Amino acid sequence: MRLLIDMDGVIADFEGDFLRRWKETHPEKTHIPLENRKGFYVREQYPQEFSEFVQEIYHSPGFYQNLPPMPGAIEALKEIKNSLNHVFLCTSPMLPKYENCVLEKFHWVYEHLGTDWVNNIILTRDKTVVKGDVLIDDKPDIKGSCIPEWEHVIYDQPYNRNITGNRRLTWDNWKEVLNIQ
Amino acid sequence: MRLLIDMDGVIADFEGDFLRRWKETHPEKTHIPLENRKGFYVREQYPQEFSEFVQEIYHSPGFYQNLPPMPGAIEALKEIKNSLNHVFLCTSPMLPKYENCVLEKFHWVYEHLGTDWVNNIILTRDKTVVKGDVLIDDKPDIKGSCIPEWEHVIYDQPYNRNITGNRRLTWDNWKEVLNIQ
Repeated sequence: MRLLIDMDGVIADFEGDFLRRWKETHPEKTHIPLENRKGFYVREQYPQEFSEFVQEIYHSPGFYQNLPPMPGAIEALKEIKNSLNHVFLCTSPMLPKYENCVLEKFHWVYEHLGTDWVNNIILTRDKTVVKGDVLIDDKPDIKGSCIPEWEHVIYDQPYNRNITGNRRLTWDNWKEVLNIQ
Repeated sequence: MRLLIDMDGVIADFEGDFLRRWKETHPEKTHIPLENRKGFYVREQYPQEFSEFVQEIYHSPGFYQNLPPMPGAIEALKEIKNSLNHVFLCTSPMLPKYENCVLEKFHWVYEHLGTDWVNNIILTRDKTVVKGDVLIDDKPDIKGSCIPEWEHVIYDQPYNRNITGNRRLTWDNWKEVLNIQ
């Protein structure tokens, strides 16, 4: 099996760390608890007048590099690497403000997973052009220029629970879902 | 047609600018004129005792960002974008020293081609996992984890003229080779 794995919201805790920083930076403003998050883009769920402040958080230097790993993700990735020959981290850079995100994603992988995994990063806005059997991704719908050849297995998050047609996975049940021993 | 285009040695003049900097930084040392370059890696053609100095040049901050475009490349890319719906810049980061190269490749594309093209960057060490009809690349042999579905059209360079089985292209004859009007 050729496996593609997304980063933010799957192995790096974008939402959790966004919320932590939001509450720290704007304690007087409303916040949306993780379990109430709906829709893929956090910015769209906050009131319009907060849009600039929301983006300020994930555009700030160090945000991507310092995201904590999702619980169980690093251990799961190491086990997966032992079981499968072809595993890639398939991640989209933030655009147009790519300045911090692009390099920090590389740093994150190097720091948490090491050089071998840096070698297996695929940075692309269009994931449908990448060959694979399975893509694990938290994004509800993944569009691009090709009909994807991979099955989109959803990494379960509160904001994607409106999607019902896909298999779901977390780092608690990945072995059963992917049928890997 | 879905077209993948490499960056270094195809649209960005890695070899030309390396040589310029080499002669500037080490005027007392031997240099290898472009037309005598053999083998893909410039480091391997210079005497072993210069290896560190050679790498110092392309690992230095600003090297990738300031590469001049290959003559005719920017004009050709703009015409290609008008003719084809699916064009991607498919480029491999330098590893393990990715610190400058990764972000600077994005800057280069932004500065020379604009945001639209930044959107179409695919950064991957393994180009065989990317779907496409044609990959234009100066590297003599491109290996990876898949049997590539693209035809490898070689961007003609002195150091890849030992390869005889592939079609060859430059920014002078690309329309005829790709059969694009």
